[in-house]
Amino acid sequence: MSYYRYHLFGCQNERPDGHPRGCCKSRGGPDLLAHMKARIKQQGLQKEIRINKAGCLDRCEDGPVLVVYPEEVWYRLDNMNDADRIVDEHLLGGTPVEELRLSSKRDDA
Amino acid sequence: MSYYRYHLFGCQNERPDGHPRGCCKSRGGPDLLAHMKARIKQQGLQKEIRINKAGCLDRCEDGPVLVVYPEEVWYRLDNMNDADRIVDEHLLGGTPVEELRLSSKRDDA
Repeated sequence: MSYYRYHLFGCQNERPDGHPRGCCKSRGGPDLLAHMKARIKQQGLQKEIRINKAGCLDRCEDGPVLVVYPEEVWYRLDNMNDADRIVDEHLLGGTPVEELRLSSKRDDA
Repeated sequence: MSYYRYHLFGCQNERPDGHPRGCCKSRGGPDLLAHMKARIKQQGLQKEIRINKAGCLDRCEDGPVLVVYPEEVWYRLDNMNDADRIVDEHLLGGTPVEELRLSSKRDDA
């Protein structure tokens, strides 16, 4: 049994303007994460589903990214609709949103 | 296969002085995490073993805490010696440090 049923970490890293890799913060990562967190709280599920800010997850080019542990599902989410789908379909419904998933395989691995 | 062999999140949350739950930051969480991160970098393993800062993991009373995903091992570490043991025995050696582990079961679950 897991301490948290789902434990999400959303990248909040900020890089200077014009950095070639970009960053999750400038692409809206913090607002998207806050939106998801508020929705989970509305459902009263914040003890089972923990949503945390995290430092750079080093997938900047794919950002804004988040990862759902312990099952390890990586997502790129572009807008509030994507954030809602992850909440509704995955966190509440139990089924990962395949269209938004990122690979768990590294290009350099 | 996991994107990161080990993905650590160390709580960096700060509460006001005198808060009854205390916080990982005032107990040295950030320095302990920075020490582990530097050791992993010395080994050239920072692409496989990612060490991230995180917001409040909500295990304040047990802090400073960190969690190692995807296997989900929770630790309380009190000092640099504990930090070194987690690096040497778990991250480099592959065997969790049982004496430092926290339960994955919630008291209120």
